[in-house]
Order: sequence, then structure tokens, then C-alpha cells
Amino acid sequence: LPEAAELDRLRVVLVRTRNPLNIGAAARAMSNFGFTRLRVVNPYEASFREAQSAVGAAELLRSAEEFSSVSDAIADCSLVVGTTAVGHREIVHPLLRLEQGGRRMREHLGSGRAALLFGSENHGLSREDLSHCHWLLRIPTRAEHISMNLGQAVAVCLYELVREDSAARESVAETTERASGEDLERVDHALFEALAASDYIKAGADASTSEKARRLVRRMQLTPEDARTWTGMLAKMSARMRSGR
Amino acid sequence: LPEAAELDRLRVVLVRTRNPLNIGAAARAMSNFGFTRLRVVNPYEASFREAQSAVGAAELLRSAEEFSSVSDAIADCSLVVGTTAVGHREIVHPLLRLEQGGRRMREHLGSGRAALLFGSENHGLSREDLSHCHWLLRIPTRAEHISMNLGQAVAVCLYELVREDSAARESVAETTERASGEDLERVDHALFEALAASDYIKAGADASTSEKARRLVRRMQLTPEDARTWTGMLAKMSARMRSGR
Repeated sequence: LPEAAELDRLRVVLVRTRNPLNIGAAARAMSNFGFTRLRVVNPYEASFREAQSAVGAAELLRSAEEFSSVSDAIADCSLVVGTTAVGHREIVHPLLRLEQGGRRMREHLGSGRAALLFGSENHGLSREDLSHCHWLLRIPTRAEHISMNLGQAVAVCLYELVREDSAARESVAETTERASGEDLERVDHALFEALAASDYIKAGADASTSEKARRLVRRMQLTPEDARTWTGMLAKMSARMRSGR
Repeated sequence: LPEAAELDRLRVVLVRTRNPLNIGAAARAMSNFGFTRLRVVNPYEASFREAQSAVGAAELLRSAEEFSSVSDAIADCSLVVGTTAVGHREIVHPLLRLEQGGRRMREHLGSGRAALLFGSENHGLSREDLSHCHWLLRIPTRAEHISMNLGQAVAVCLYELVREDSAARESVAETTERASGEDLERVDHALFEALAASDYIKAGADASTSEKARRLVRRMQLTPEDARTWTGMLAKMSARMRSGR
């Protein structure tokens, strides 16, 4: 099993979950496999902390952190992974099968924090939610019946993360530190400012443009230092463009 | 994924299940992963076939076979495996972790039928139930919180049975096309121009500055399309900065 410190670096993030029983079930699976940090974003039921399904994990559920945006919920994470049942929306992110993605996440958890996002039971993660993700993960369900129950999907993903695979353990841990969600948001902001100042995008551009920019930034796989460099360069360009007007 | 014939050789056997929602959840997970044959032994609720939790698997649930003894439910199987949370009873059977046990089951399913038994939510499988088993399987939950929700335990076991070992080893990088040296040079040039126009770097900056910029661009791991996007954005910013002077 991974060390406690590694398990402690994962944030399970449940976004707009409708059924509080599923939040409780996620908490139970987390506790079964040794994970501790649950985050919820705009849950449908305010009283989710009392879900009876969190058998043996009531304390974990009570200490869940609540957020009003995905952006805030992943701010301290340097890897953000979204889960998807594919099929119902165009995928513009790299998509990994759980076997593969789980291995990548474990490597990352060796030194950095990661968030694993699960969307609502009906609609999954939105395009806006996905724009915060570095890549997406899919459980290898069959095409004719892709969509899993949320609590079961959480359990399967967490099992893959603690699964003992001698081959996986021999692999070299990823040593490069990655920029946090907060760092990346500063890059997003600086880039968006510069694009607006240059008329590359028009004032009042729609959400899909900023989502595109966000995905572009996530694909850069920035280190914290490179994120600072880009933020500084872009801010300087924006200042120059604004002053010249 | 294993072939349909192999999936078809597994019988998932739920013994004395109390909550019909768990039977429905098991049916759903079976359908997600391509298994078809559900058997129930003395379920607590006679009306389990109407469980709402069998989303997308109502037909599988309706066609579940009902038995009044474990002995009858496993009569046509040449391998019988019991699941256990250990701890609360003396184990007299060989006990395998899911990672190893799953491999053994898959080997068996290549040519023979197998039954995978899950006991009741409160008490698991009885000594009498276990006496029908060739060996036992345990999901690697932590000692302090061993016991999983039944539907989640079924999902995790079935995932292990369809899991593709080779998928974990596939390299992701190889599948993503990378920008050529030429593409990257265009990004270098556009970036350098923009940095100069913004006074982020001074005119006549030395070689080490342009090398730094080049390394920064190389660390972005750009695809050809992203390289074009960055070249275009930076050129636009440069044009704006130059025109404002």
C-alpha cells in the first residue's frame, strides 16, 4: 500500500452531487482505502454530513471541506484529474484509462498534491469543471453501459490507487514538481489579460474562450517557477499594450 | 478486456443480502463491466427484482436466478471463491489479496465456470457458506476499516477481473503528437519578439536570455496545434505593443 503521506495528498472532490447517500458512500470507500480528505463543491443537499451511508466514516464525512467553486477546491493541488463517462460530450483533454491514469496519479502523489474530481450523478463534470483538469480518467466500463453509480466509481478509482502492482512500484516516481491550481490560475489570468489587450480575443469573450485558454495552460505542465515566469512575462506585455493606447 | 465467453462464465452469488438496493447496485456494476449472470441465495426481500438502484441493468436483475442454498447456487461451477473482510472469524481457507486472486480467477474463466460469493451486509459469509469455497479473496482495505459496502465491494472485484494489466504500462507520451523543432522555433521567435517589445528583456540581450526562453518553450511539451496557437497569440501581442509606440 502507498504510504500514509501519499494517501493524505489526494483530495477527492465531489462536484454538485445530488444524492447525499453517494457522498456518504464515497466517504466510506475513502476510509476503507486509507484516504482522508474529502471536498464537496455545491452539494445539492446541505445536510449531506449526516448521510447514513458513511458507515465507519462519519468523522471523515463531518470534516469534509465545502467549496462554492471547483477553482477554490483544487487551488492547492498541482495535479487535477477529472473522471468522465465519455460519449456524451466532445473530449478535448488527454483521456487515460484508469489502469494508466491511476499509475500516473500515484507517481504524482509521491511528492505532490492531486485532486480527483467526480461530477454529478446526472450530468457528470461540466465543460467549465473540465477546463481545470490536466487530463481525464475513465473507468473501463463497456460502451453499452458506461455510466457507473457514483459511490461505486469512487471505490473503483481509489482501489486502483492503492492496488499493489509490483511493476507499478518499480516505476520511477515523478520527481518534477508541478505548479498548483493557484499558480495556474495566475497564469490563466495573465494570459487572458494579454489576449484581451492584444485584441486576440474581443472584450466580453464567452466562457468557451477562457476555457480554451485554461486548457492550453494546463497542457503546458508547468513547474511552479515556470508558472511565475509566464505570469511575469504576460503581465509585462499587458502593461506595455495598455500604456501604448 | 476479457472475451464475452469468459465474462459469461462468472456467476456473481449474493448470499442472504438484506438490502435490495445492494442487489440492484451489484447488478449495475456487473452490467458496467460486462458480466451477465447474477444469482441470489435467500435474499431478505422477496421483491429485490424491482430495486431502483439497478440503473441500466433492470433486465439483468430480472433474470437473476434464485436459490435456497449456496450448494445449489454453485453446483455448475468448477471454482468457488468467497469474499471476506477477515478479522471476525478464524480463517481456515487459503486467503488471497484481490490482485492475486483476480488473476487466478481470470485464468480459470478462460475455460471453466467460477462463482464469486458475497455474504450478507452484517455477517458476511457463514462457516457453512465458506465450506463450499476453494479459497477466499480479500479486498485490500485497511485493518482499521475493513468492511466495505456490498455494492462497492462487488464493483471493485469485477473491475479487477476486467482490468487490463498492459494498459497500465502503455506510455501516454507516445500517443500525443509533439511539435517539431521548426514549430518550436517559431514559438521561440514570437516569444522573444514579444519579450523585447514589452521591455521584459532589453534590446541586445545576451545569448543566455534567449536560451532561457528556448528552454521554457521546450518544457511546455507543445503539440503542433498548441505551438501554432502560441505563435499566433504572441505575434498579435507584439503587433499591438509595436503599434502603440
